[in-house]
Amino acid sequence: MKSELRRDPISGRTVIIAKERSERPHDFGRPEPVRVPHACPFCLGHEGDTPPALAVYRPAGETLENSGWRVRVIPNKYAALSLDGPSPHADGAATLDRSAPLSLPGLLQTGYGAHEVIVESPRHVTCFRSLDEVELRLTLAAYRDRLRLHADNVSLRYAQVFKNTGAAGGASVEHVHSQLIATPFVPGDVRNELASCRHYYEQKCRCVFCDLVELELSQSVRVVAQTDTLVAFCPYAARFPYETWVLPRQHGAHYGEISERQLVELGPLLQSLVGAATSTSGQDAYNFLLHTAPFDTSPSDHYHWHIEIFPRMLEVAGFEWGTGCFINPVPPEDAAEQLRGMAQSFQSGKTS
Amino acid sequence: MKSELRRDPISGRTVIIAKERSERPHDFGRPEPVRVPHACPFCLGHEGDTPPALAVYRPAGETLENSGWRVRVIPNKYAALSLDGPSPHADGAATLDRSAPLSLPGLLQTGYGAHEVIVESPRHVTCFRSLDEVELRLTLAAYRDRLRLHADNVSLRYAQVFKNTGAAGGASVEHVHSQLIATPFVPGDVRNELASCRHYYEQKCRCVFCDLVELELSQSVRVVAQTDTLVAFCPYAARFPYETWVLPRQHGAHYGEISERQLVELGPLLQSLVGAATSTSGQDAYNFLLHTAPFDTSPSDHYHWHIEIFPRMLEVAGFEWGTGCFINPVPPEDAAEQLRGMAQSFQSGKTS
Repeated sequence: MKSELRRDPISGRTVIIAKERSERPHDFGRPEPVRVPHACPFCLGHEGDTPPALAVYRPAGETLENSGWRVRVIPNKYAALSLDGPSPHADGAATLDRSAPLSLPGLLQTGYGAHEVIVESPRHVTCFRSLDEVELRLTLAAYRDRLRLHADNVSLRYAQVFKNTGAAGGASVEHVHSQLIATPFVPGDVRNELASCRHYYEQKCRCVFCDLVELELSQSVRVVAQTDTLVAFCPYAARFPYETWVLPRQHGAHYGEISERQLVELGPLLQSLVGAATSTSGQDAYNFLLHTAPFDTSPSDHYHWHIEIFPRMLEVAGFEWGTGCFINPVPPEDAAEQLRGMAQSFQSGKTS
Repeated sequence: MKSELRRDPISGRTVIIAKERSERPHDFGRPEPVRVPHACPFCLGHEGDTPPALAVYRPAGETLENSGWRVRVIPNKYAALSLDGPSPHADGAATLDRSAPLSLPGLLQTGYGAHEVIVESPRHVTCFRSLDEVELRLTLAAYRDRLRLHADNVSLRYAQVFKNTGAAGGASVEHVHSQLIATPFVPGDVRNELASCRHYYEQKCRCVFCDLVELELSQSVRVVAQTDTLVAFCPYAARFPYETWVLPRQHGAHYGEISERQLVELGPLLQSLVGAATSTSGQDAYNFLLHTAPFDTSPSDHYHWHIEIFPRMLEVAGFEWGTGCFINPVPPEDAAEQLRGMAQSFQSGKTS
């Protein structure tokens, strides 16, 4: 199969789908992860090793005394951004006065923002798939609650919820967790994606994601799994092998507005997709990231929250860093076919 | 030190400089690279294991018979793009008719383009620092010649020259080499950078890179090394720890127009920077990438070729993939200070 250039209808980015690249020989094998043993600060009983919790979650009716916590939100001890100190003037990071002489220190702004860790279980497990039903629901509810809370801070514009699992996934702690970074500006890639979606909406008065959901469901060749309220598919211009997106089937711009029913369906769906992605790729390391509308988007008819999941199989290298254009050796149609069967077996509990 | 938000004056991207992040503990150590032994297709005498050469280089006066080759340009056997087959209609990958119904197969285009490997030595060495004087000069001349050649193909718009070294740098072959991928479109990140530079030029009638060179030389706090015609500094909003840029001090948009003097100075400078970056970071894996103006930029007063070098110390993770915003735990001023002394000792041959 010759390679193909594909353009993502959401972000506009171009991807090279090059199946033959997967056949190239490698001088380097995949190294075994090296564990550095030390006490885990995220385990039950080690709460004193982290900053005090911002929120703790347990099932309704239980108390901290009789059941401890099931999900715990804490400030990142090694935070990239912090809510201490003065908040920036509104548009600081997003504007640059081009008529002023080039002046670098003038661009400087302190790192105002939030950086939180969502510890998803009191047990020392390392994969999202190991969460029990309660931990799963409370984790996804914690994402919702934190996003709602930060949306009320007028100095913040956006929050990125993400999960790094495994050394190759960029994790420094193996205990199952995710993170949230809230920024006083809308980051570049998000701004580009929003602009592209707004442009589509202005032309058609329809959300490009809603159209994409309809198209993917009708073509079905890239669909991996679906529930009553959600659909998962490999995107047409996937950057990474086995990249999968999960979207609500009904329009919704903000994850903060997720319905109870979506919340209940999302957990097991994500677990089956993570299971399928890791077993199909043979790679335990993965990332997932939650894209949701910025806090100040109003109206939000043109954006649609979604979660992107991808196992970390390949090192991103010079070409991608130089161009922003990715080379993916696994066509999304092939990826979906492999993931589909696997996700079903995970959903029905046949594989563990 | 509190973290800082910095905005790159060239690309407009925002970077978080967060020194405290470097102190966080890690559950994972750095794994040892695993070598998979097999015959190297890039070594002298194994030319039959690769596609026929597109160009071979040897010192003036020598012949293939009496001295073999010193640098060899070959098609990538596992090419992401290929010049076989029909060339695309000019704006195929860069435009999308927004008034048409959303249709994914309609965006598809075959992977026209070039993907070449520049084998930089007939000897089985693995680092750019091991090239001898002749190999070094011929390698940098090969970049120039290939860029000039592809610029004459009206179906091509851009070429990215890049080097992936080490498993963590995304290399699959360890024998010292770099690659060139020429595309029928200007990739997204390059387009954004060009737009930003054009905007600056329209305001000031000056190249933003020229202004930046002047500013960095006058502040000198981020300068790592300089020659008569070139300067190397850590950029103010570096994405990666120890990221270093090399630029010609005089304006020049296209690397294809590099002068003999710049070519002679560039090799040893790059070698000392690679040496400094790898020893300072303790990481053998690195990338470098050559940014040059697209083939059809005319006039090209607003762009300025440059080379970006960075050791691969950290896994890029969920936050960066979701936002395009990088977290760098090494302030560029600290990086420059560390690199400066090291680069000098490499240049004067004190360190090997």
